Amino acid sequence: MPITFADRLNQVETSAIRELFKLLGKPGIISFAGGFPDSAMFDVEGLRTASEAALREEPGAALQYGATEGYQPLREQLAAFMAGKSVRDLAPEQLIVTTGSQQALDLLGKTLIDPGDKVIVEGPTFLATIQCFRLYGAQLVSAPIDADGVRVDALERLIEEHRPKLVYLIPTFGNPSGATLSLERRRRVLELAVKHQVVLVEDDPYGDLYFGEAPPPSLLALSHEVPGSRELLVHCGSLSKVLAPGLRIGWMVAPAELLARATMCKQFSDAHTSTFAQATAAQYLRAGRMPATLARVREVYAGRAQAMGEALRRELGEGVDFVAPRGGLFIWARLTGAGGRIADGRELARRAIDQGVAFVPGTPFFCADPDHATLRLSFATADAERIREGVVRMGRALETEAVPS
Amino acid sequence: MPITFADRLNQVETSAIRELFKLLGKPGIISFAGGFPDSAMFDVEGLRTASEAALREEPGAALQYGATEGYQPLREQLAAFMAGKSVRDLAPEQLIVTTGSQQALDLLGKTLIDPGDKVIVEGPTFLATIQCFRLYGAQLVSAPIDADGVRVDALERLIEEHRPKLVYLIPTFGNPSGATLSLERRRRVLELAVKHQVVLVEDDPYGDLYFGEAPPPSLLALSHEVPGSRELLVHCGSLSKVLAPGLRIGWMVAPAELLARATMCKQFSDAHTSTFAQATAAQYLRAGRMPATLARVREVYAGRAQAMGEALRRELGEGVDFVAPRGGLFIWARLTGAGGRIADGRELARRAIDQGVAFVPGTPFFCADPDHATLRLSFATADAERIREGVVRMGRALETEAVPS
Repeated sequence: MPITFADRLNQVETSAIRELFKLLGKPGIISFAGGFPDSAMFDVEGLRTASEAALREEPGAALQYGATEGYQPLREQLAAFMAGKSVRDLAPEQLIVTTGSQQALDLLGKTLIDPGDKVIVEGPTFLATIQCFRLYGAQLVSAPIDADGVRVDALERLIEEHRPKLVYLIPTFGNPSGATLSLERRRRVLELAVKHQVVLVEDDPYGDLYFGEAPPPSLLALSHEVPGSRELLVHCGSLSKVLAPGLRIGWMVAPAELLARATMCKQFSDAHTSTFAQATAAQYLRAGRMPATLARVREVYAGRAQAMGEALRRELGEGVDFVAPRGGLFIWARLTGAGGRIADGRELARRAIDQGVAFVPGTPFFCADPDHATLRLSFATADAERIREGVVRMGRALETEAVPS
Repeated sequence: MPITFADRLNQVETSAIRELFKLLGKPGIISFAGGFPDSAMFDVEGLRTASEAALREEPGAALQYGATEGYQPLREQLAAFMAGKSVRDLAPEQLIVTTGSQQALDLLGKTLIDPGDKVIVEGPTFLATIQCFRLYGAQLVSAPIDADGVRVDALERLIEEHRPKLVYLIPTFGNPSGATLSLERRRRVLELAVKHQVVLVEDDPYGDLYFGEAPPPSLLALSHEVPGSRELLVHCGSLSKVLAPGLRIGWMVAPAELLARATMCKQFSDAHTSTFAQATAAQYLRAGRMPATLARVREVYAGRAQAMGEALRRELGEGVDFVAPRGGLFIWARLTGAGGRIADGRELARRAIDQGVAFVPGTPFFCADPDHATLRLSFATADAERIREGVVRMGRALETEAVPS
C-alpha cells in the first residue's frame, strides 16, 4: 500500500518549472532563467570577517539555540537598516527574523489562511508565493498590473468581490514584472487596505537594487501617512538579493498580534533561523559594509540591464515589447507577433534552448488567465557580453520557422 | 476590526512553557529546565576553521541559493556519518537536509497530515512535536512507555483502534523520558509498521550521546532485517545536540516518494537550508573532527548525569523515583509522595523556583492523560557542582510545607 499524502498537496503543481530547469544543464547555454543574484558580486571577504567576528566575540550565541523571534543584535541592525530607508519608528521588536523571506510567506500562510480563503496577488507574481499559499488551501485571485504596478481600481473591485484574507504585492521592481507601483498608487493601496480592512503584504526583496533614482518609499515607509494602515500591513525584507541568499536571512514587520502568532508558528517550523548566519549578518551590517556593497551591486546590474535592453531592441526589434526596468533583476517582455513571428513565450523558450539560450516563459507566473506572450529575462548573472550573445540567440530563435511538432 | 487568524491556530496552546520560561530570569537560579546542549562544549575552533574553509574553497556555493534537497557535499558527509552508525546502503539522495530536525517534523506534518488524522506519539514526548502536528490538524494519541521505551502491545492496540497516519517515536534517550527502546521492541515496532502499513517516524537527535555502551541500532539501521519496513520508515537526524544547534542542520531519510513531496513542501517553506551553514557543516564533517567531539561530549554529559543521579538519591531519597539514563540530556523522574511529600511536579516546580532551581514539570509533555507526578531534569548545562547545589535546593523544595494559596 503506498503512503497516503495530505490533500493539500493536490493544490500544487510544480512541473512547469521543473521541466525548464531540466533543460538548463545543456552545455554552453546562456541562462536568463535564474531568479538569483550573481555569485561573483558576493562580498566574500566582508562575510568572512563578519563570521569570524561572530565566532570570536559571541561564540555561545552564534552556535547555541536562539530566540524564535531572531537574534536581538540582528533585529537591531535590521531596524536601523529600515530606518535608513525612511521607515519611521520601527523598534527591533516589531520585526522577526525569518529563514529567507520565503519563510515569511509560509508563516503568513500558516497564520492566516484557512482552506478556501481568497488571496489576491498580482498577475503575474512570484511563483513560490502562489504555491506556498495554495498549500494552505488559498484560492488565488489575479489582479491586473501595468508598468506602474497593480491597477488600483481593478484591485478594489476584486477586494469587494472576493473579500480576500490578504492582498500580496511586490510593489518595487516586481518579480517577474519588473514593475514599480507609483507613489500615488501606493497611497491608494494603503487606503484600500484600511477602507476594506484587509491585510496587505508588501514583499520587498528588490527595493534596494535601483539603478538611477531611488524608487518611491515602501508601503511600510508610507504607512504613517495613512492612519490605520500600519495595523494591517506586513512587510517582508531579505538580504538574499543584496548580500547573499545562502545566509537565508529575511525579516517580517507586522502588527503585534500577527507577529506573535507567526512567531509561534515559526517555533514549530524551524525553532529559529540559524544563529550562526544571524550573528554573521549582524556583524556585517554593524561593520557598515552594506552601503558600499549596495552601490557596487546597483552599478553592475544597471549596466547589465542596459545591455540587455539595448540588445533586445536591436536583435528582436518590433517582435518584442518591454519597459526598461529601473531596478531589480528582471526584464519582463511581451512578444508582439509582429510580422507573423512567434507570439507564444513557451514556444520561444523551447526554440531558444535549441539556440543555446534559456529564459522562463511568463505563463507560470500567472495564478489565472496567463498572458502566454510574456517572458521573464534575468540580466543578473551574465556579463554584458554574454547578455548580448544570449539575446542574439534569442533573435535567431524568434526568426526560426515554426516546425510542425 | 482585528485580523482573523486561521482556525488551525486554535489547536495549539503554548502557555505552559511560556509561563515557566518567564521564571527563568530570576537571578542566581540554577536551571535544569533547558533542552539544549552546553555552549561551553561547542568546538568553536573547529567550526571557525570549517567556515573559513567553506568561504575560501567554495564561496559561490556557500553564499548562493542551493538545491532544496540540500548541499550535495553535506548530503554525502551525512550519508557517511550514518554509515558509521550501521546504516547500510544509504545514498546521499535518500536524505534531505532540513533546517534543524524541527523542520523535518513540520514537513512531515505538511506532507502527511490532513485535519482529523490520528498520530500516535509516546506519552510523554517532545513538546514541539505535539504542537507542530496539531497545527496541521492532527488528533494525537498517547502510547504508554516504560524504561524500555514504548510498550509494543499497547502500541499495536492503539494502531488497530485509531488507524493513525503515522507513529512518531524517539526510540533512543527520549525527550523527556530518557528511555531507550530495547532491541527486541525495535524489531517488533518495525514489524508492526509493516503489518499495519503505517508510517513510522524515528526522531533521533540524542542517539550519539551515549555514556557507556552504544544503544541498540537505530530503527533505520535495523530496517534491513524487517522486509518492507524501510518503505514506511522516516528517520530524522540532527547536528544540534552533538555539534551546535545554531547551525540549524538536521536531515531526514525517507522513502523516495515521501522525500520528493517533503522537498516540494520545503521549497515553499524556506527554499533551502542556509548553504553557509551547510557548507560549514560539510567541511567540519570532512575534516574528521566529529569522533573527538562526540567523545568529549559523551564524557562530560556522562559525568553530569552521574552527579545528578547521585544527588537525587542523596537529597530526595525515596521522594523520587527514576532510572539512571544511559545517554541523552535528561533525567525523567517521578515524585512518589512518600512520607506525605509533594507528589505533583507542577507544585514542586513552583516551590523549586522559590528555592533557586528550575526544571520543567512533566505534565505538558503528555498529549493526553498526563502523569502530574513527573519531572524533566536536564543535566546538560550545569557543571557537577552546580548540579549538586541545584538538587540540594530541590530537596529543600520537596521538604517545604504546603502553603495554602
